[in-house]
Amino acid sequence: MSDRVVLAYSGGLDTSVAIGWIAEETGAEVVAVAVDVGQGGEDLDTIRKRALECGAVEAVVADARDEFAEQYCLPALQANALYQDRYPLVSALSRPVIVKHLVEAAKYHGAGTVSHGCTGKGNDQVRFEVGIGALAPDLKVIAPVRDFAWTREKAIAWAEDRNLPIDVSKKSPFSIDQNVWGRAVETGFLEDIWNAPTEDVYDYTANPAEPRDADEVVITFDKGVPVAIDGETVTVLQAIQELNRRAGAQGVGRLDMVEDRLVGIKSREVYEAPGAIALITAHQELENVTVERDLARFKRGVEQRWTELVYDGLWFSPLKEALDTFIARSQEYVTGDIRLVLHSGRAVVNGRRSEQALYDFNLATYDEGDTFDQSLAKGFVQLWGLPSKIAAKRSLHH
Amino acid sequence: MSDRVVLAYSGGLDTSVAIGWIAEETGAEVVAVAVDVGQGGEDLDTIRKRALECGAVEAVVADARDEFAEQYCLPALQANALYQDRYPLVSALSRPVIVKHLVEAAKYHGAGTVSHGCTGKGNDQVRFEVGIGALAPDLKVIAPVRDFAWTREKAIAWAEDRNLPIDVSKKSPFSIDQNVWGRAVETGFLEDIWNAPTEDVYDYTANPAEPRDADEVVITFDKGVPVAIDGETVTVLQAIQELNRRAGAQGVGRLDMVEDRLVGIKSREVYEAPGAIALITAHQELENVTVERDLARFKRGVEQRWTELVYDGLWFSPLKEALDTFIARSQEYVTGDIRLVLHSGRAVVNGRRSEQALYDFNLATYDEGDTFDQSLAKGFVQLWGLPSKIAAKRSLHH
Amino acid sequence: MSDRVVLAYSGGLDTSVAIGWIAEETGAEVVAVAVDVGQGGEDLDTIRKRALECGAVEAVVADARDEFAEQYCLPALQANALYQDRYPLVSALSRPVIVKHLVEAAKYHGAGTVSHGCTGKGNDQVRFEVGIGALAPDLKVIAPVRDFAWTREKAIAWAEDRNLPIDVSKKSPFSIDQNVWGRAVETGFLEDIWNAPTEDVYDYTANPAEPRDADEVVITFDKGVPVAIDGETVTVLQAIQELNRRAGAQGVGRLDMVEDRLVGIKSREVYEAPGAIALITAHQELENVTVERDLARFKRGVEQRWTELVYDGLWFSPLKEALDTFIARSQEYVTGDIRLVLHSGRAVVNGRRSEQALYDFNLATYDEGDTFDQSLAKGFVQLWGLPSKIAAKRSLHH
Amino acid sequence: MSDRVVLAYSGGLDTSVAIGWIAEETGAEVVAVAVDVGQGGEDLDTIRKRALECGAVEAVVADARDEFAEQYCLPALQANALYQDRYPLVSALSRPVIVKHLVEAAKYHGAGTVSHGCTGKGNDQVRFEVGIGALAPDLKVIAPVRDFAWTREKAIAWAEDRNLPIDVSKKSPFSIDQNVWGRAVETGFLEDIWNAPTEDVYDYTANPAEPRDADEVVITFDKGVPVAIDGETVTVLQAIQELNRRAGAQGVGRLDMVEDRLVGIKSREVYEAPGAIALITAHQELENVTVERDLARFKRGVEQRWTELVYDGLWFSPLKEALDTFIARSQEYVTGDIRLVLHSGRAVVNGRRSEQALYDFNLATYDEGDTFDQSLAKGFVQLWGLPSKIAAKRSLHH
Repeated sequence: MSDRVVLAYSGGLDTSVAIGWIAEETGAEVVAVAVDVGQGGEDLDTIRKRALECGAVEAVVADARDEFAEQYCLPALQANALYQDRYPLVSALSRPVIVKHLVEAAKYHGAGTVSHGCTGKGNDQVRFEVGIGALAPDLKVIAPVRDFAWTREKAIAWAEDRNLPIDVSKKSPFSIDQNVWGRAVETGFLEDIWNAPTEDVYDYTANPAEPRDADEVVITFDKGVPVAIDGETVTVLQAIQELNRRAGAQGVGRLDMVEDRLVGIKSREVYEAPGAIALITAHQELENVTVERDLARFKRGVEQRWTELVYDGLWFSPLKEALDTFIARSQEYVTGDIRLVLHSGRAVVNGRRSEQALYDFNLATYDEGDTFDQSLAKGFVQLWGLPSKIAAKRSLHH
Repeated sequence: MSDRVVLAYSGGLDTSVAIGWIAEETGAEVVAVAVDVGQGGEDLDTIRKRALECGAVEAVVADARDEFAEQYCLPALQANALYQDRYPLVSALSRPVIVKHLVEAAKYHGAGTVSHGCTGKGNDQVRFEVGIGALAPDLKVIAPVRDFAWTREKAIAWAEDRNLPIDVSKKSPFSIDQNVWGRAVETGFLEDIWNAPTEDVYDYTANPAEPRDADEVVITFDKGVPVAIDGETVTVLQAIQELNRRAGAQGVGRLDMVEDRLVGIKSREVYEAPGAIALITAHQELENVTVERDLARFKRGVEQRWTELVYDGLWFSPLKEALDTFIARSQEYVTGDIRLVLHSGRAVVNGRRSEQALYDFNLATYDEGDTFDQSLAKGFVQLWGLPSKIAAKRSLHH
Repeated sequence: MSDRVVLAYSGGLDTSVAIGWIAEETGAEVVAVAVDVGQGGEDLDTIRKRALECGAVEAVVADARDEFAEQYCLPALQANALYQDRYPLVSALSRPVIVKHLVEAAKYHGAGTVSHGCTGKGNDQVRFEVGIGALAPDLKVIAPVRDFAWTREKAIAWAEDRNLPIDVSKKSPFSIDQNVWGRAVETGFLEDIWNAPTEDVYDYTANPAEPRDADEVVITFDKGVPVAIDGETVTVLQAIQELNRRAGAQGVGRLDMVEDRLVGIKSREVYEAPGAIALITAHQELENVTVERDLARFKRGVEQRWTELVYDGLWFSPLKEALDTFIARSQEYVTGDIRLVLHSGRAVVNGRRSEQALYDFNLATYDEGDTFDQSLAKGFVQLWGLPSKIAAKRSLHH
Repeated sequence: MSDRVVLAYSGGLDTSVAIGWIAEETGAEVVAVAVDVGQGGEDLDTIRKRALECGAVEAVVADARDEFAEQYCLPALQANALYQDRYPLVSALSRPVIVKHLVEAAKYHGAGTVSHGCTGKGNDQVRFEVGIGALAPDLKVIAPVRDFAWTREKAIAWAEDRNLPIDVSKKSPFSIDQNVWGRAVETGFLEDIWNAPTEDVYDYTANPAEPRDADEVVITFDKGVPVAIDGETVTVLQAIQELNRRAGAQGVGRLDMVEDRLVGIKSREVYEAPGAIALITAHQELENVTVERDLARFKRGVEQRWTELVYDGLWFSPLKEALDTFIARSQEYVTGDIRLVLHSGRAVVNGRRSEQALYDFNLATYDEGDTFDQSLAKGFVQLWGLPSKIAAKRSLHH
């Protein structure tokens, strides 16, 4: 049996051309693997057939939507993962689940090499290759676009030369990546960072500026997992989908930012993540109600580091996995309901209730029923401020 | 000369009653000090006269608005200070500037004691007393409401007894604190955390749900300082005021959250901070464009700690002051313009330009002019992932 | 049945007097509880009898040595817990296990109150009371020495008055606390921080300055737990005891420092912890060999926070418990042998071996067998330095 | 004029060969630059002449010893910089000062390229190249040993071929780097991490196991700068040299560890840094006495990050420079005397005195003169533990 290469296949121009090119260059058989992470768009069976028509010896479609929601999006939700306080890690989350399927396919099909279509200036090459190295350190990797400097023009010429069944006339002005957790748009006129995005950039969200009635939703969490929406039980995937629909209809979750890539440059990115933003907003407030102060304060640092690691391609790293145990523990009591108003681009919490609340009406109230012993405060304040006071005496003295 | 007590005077029931009560209890003369931090409401001269009518030997009004904006709000802006990622430290910022004026008044008027009207379960007692201790460690503090268990009922009875010129019939259903950086509302029906705020809770912001046209504003920063709005030069105070007006008119800056108080309890708070939220949003994005990645990542941790310290009453502490030097340094290149759309409760950046940008079109673009050398990426990715790969080999082996 | 008070009983003057005093003041029956954490000194049965002679209705001695070693010292070892990079948390570790026994005794004996003999300026009052509050929030606490301002003189007078069987003539010039993890000495002439400790301050350690032959020991860890010494299987308690003996004989583990107490003051402390220091030294180096770099770097911050929390009395807090899960995870591969030379006050690692080592001779060597691909380095270095380089271009330009 | 290359020249085989090789390969003139950072060994004038004999058109020796001590070692001392809590950054500190001189030489001599002799698996290549990129982003870099896979054998052959004046028979069994801050030894039999170092590995330190009398030294700091030893004024360089001598004579400062390199591998390193370890030990304790608690706690995290950045080659990065401002501020009151006993490998503080001490005898003492108000403690303890207590009530309830 000749060597085999497992290719992460999207159905687009670059990876369609890669099938034949890899076969020619390396003499290996190419197994195309497309992973459904809720990206929508073309039917995956159509994509599967195209891979075969382009010369793949096998073409596999994996429905990873529930797996992606439960094992990748959910940890990100529990980490309130927002890179640079904004970006909910849309592409950064899908890469590791795709890697997992590539590695499994390589084992199943006896391939010694894995291939992806990423360029050399993005984050995704890192996420693919570091992920592959962490799951299967002996697999080789080919990155034709990066390592052999493919351009769109070369790919089109190659495709036309070989009559590949690809419509090369369709070209988005943008580079787009999408999955159930969100959608990323970059390049084109957005590369001028003074340009505002136009409405045609967006697909998951309606225009928030258009008048419409507000939508109110109650999200129920059980130990940090969204388990019901307006009282109806949902899977994690369904929770994200339903909130993509409802929050998206209100224009929630549009993001426009300049971002620090791992490879050392800044890039301009536009994102849409209506479900992710709605869920994170609700989850953060439920944590405000149910998580103890010092744990909550430290968790912010853990969240930032977790988010950086995932952004930086280190999903399968020892540190990421150790942080997971911390985060899992922090979710023990994150149980209850959050009422969220979705309207004109905003997702706003206006009610929360939980049997696990650390909010104690009797300690908090200034009305009847107050059980807080104010006589304790004086001693507390004095000793709390003592180090500053001693330092102040020194400063005044000198 | 008998001993003197400097009282932080608001003009309200509690501190009006305190004037006479302190005088009677301690035999001291009371000097009332009201500090204008842009809280609006009653005319401060009216308040000054009321203090005298209530028995103060001196009553002083200090216009601290520019000082507050430049020395307290501006550092908070540069720290992107949002406690629990939400609350822009409205009251927490005004306490130290008030403390500074109280301490100065104590020196000027020869007082050995300072007094405030805070309760024993809030954060403000800490901010007052720790601040006083840090500026004037030898001053004594009296906190009649806390230490002598004053209630509203007792205060009214005392005021009526002595015919104090206070209208005790006016009672807000809420406890309110406001200044130019924002407005805080708590207690009343908000203590049931499932209750949504009603429109009458708000004063600085219009209802974001009402349809209106968007407003677009360009904010210019010079080394982290807002210096112009739509091209017109402004002071920091003017920048905040102008954005309070324009962002407030669009319903920007409403916040509703459960918050961790320093004294160990959780409380429910509603805030309005249209100018603060607009400025912080713009400032964060300009930092995304102009601050180097590692510095930006570390600064997030510094911001969180700075914010906790200020929330926790440690404005004048050695750590807060050392963090200030770090933050000041980080602002060196935070210069440029941010275009912000204010609409229906959202403040959204949709353009940024800066001569100090680290965003480099030629490194970022995927079009012509690309100067990024993609051949460097392979080595980078391999070594970046090497520790995970070595760890993976071990795991697989065991 | 009258109310009962469980008293943390040491057998010393203060707590012996407290038995009768609490009974008289409160009318309650006093149950004395002494917990053996390896403090040595007087026989605990003698102490038990003294409690009864002093008027306790019950006197209990709990042998908590293995529990203390396994559930308190071991987590500290795995956290490399050194407060201010020096102090291995001797007293801070024993308080929570004592608290646990007090709370259990209170349940067993039907007591509604717990009492301790701590002063109001130390850390131990916090550790006792916060621990009790966290395990049994409904128990009341009496702290006679602190809340009723007992002095040594008053206690002696009371003891002589009632003919209590206490030898009040013996008085150490120091305040001492000890357990199997170490020994703490403070007060007396040590309060002048320019004074050097004298040899009579020490008890667990021989004088390191005296010439003697070195001792070499091999400590074997399994997942972060010391399981053998020189090849002989040991329990955690035995490991500590054996290293106390051998490292103590070489003068290892003496510490002399100025320390930041939680109550806001600095104090001067002298410690001896030969076993703790030897074990932590060995454990740190085994982590250097077996823990992945990013995990190791982040763990340092976790260790610091864990140590502060335990020092600050928050052993039973939600954050401490969440950090425990992180630390536990980090120990997964901390398995192997460390060879340690104990000599003249030093514990120095000079050999390590582990089947779980991430140290890879073939990657590290500069000799034959080198498998490191140096051609990868150029790209890595270039992209690693790219953000600094872009920032430098800007600086040079302005 | 032909192009010029500035070469970091050590006088050893690799860089001597590089002179001619670069000239032949590139046609450029080579300017050799040797920087004196206190490495001792061969006379630098001898080295300078050898460079010329090997074909350099210019050879420059820069005495950077004071500059190195004051601008590189001193910040490391103030940061208590110990990578992995052990290694005082010996080589990591000298690289940036060498880089600075290379860049200056390149400007002065009109060179467009800089060259170094580092391999591709160490940290120093990163420190050189990232440093050069940050000071002179337009300079090119040649690394012949790494990029052209030079081996010792190839270098010897080349040298013999061309009759270069280098004695290739002398070969240390180790790879050594040294400067006034310390000495690093690696490779050889040390690559087996179970092997103990032998005495011949060491040069800066006497054998600590040999009996000798202790040495006692008083180090005086002024704002974090060592300014006197035993009362005699010293420069920073003199302080390091004098303590290298005295602490070295007592065997202080030997280190043996497995270390995480930036390039992703672990390596085994042996260090000697008697002066650095003595100074850091003294400085840490003076900080314990003079730095406020919260500042000291946060500074530990800053120290770790600073140390990682410097280790990782980011001396000239924006984050490192911003951390410098924090550290500088923290040194404001680090003034006073530390008495240190140097003996048998230990540097132990046994006395400290400072007019800037925050240690307050009257607050700390348990004897007469105690001014600490213990009545404040109860309230403090209660509110300090309140969050844990509220959380405990919830846990018990569920």
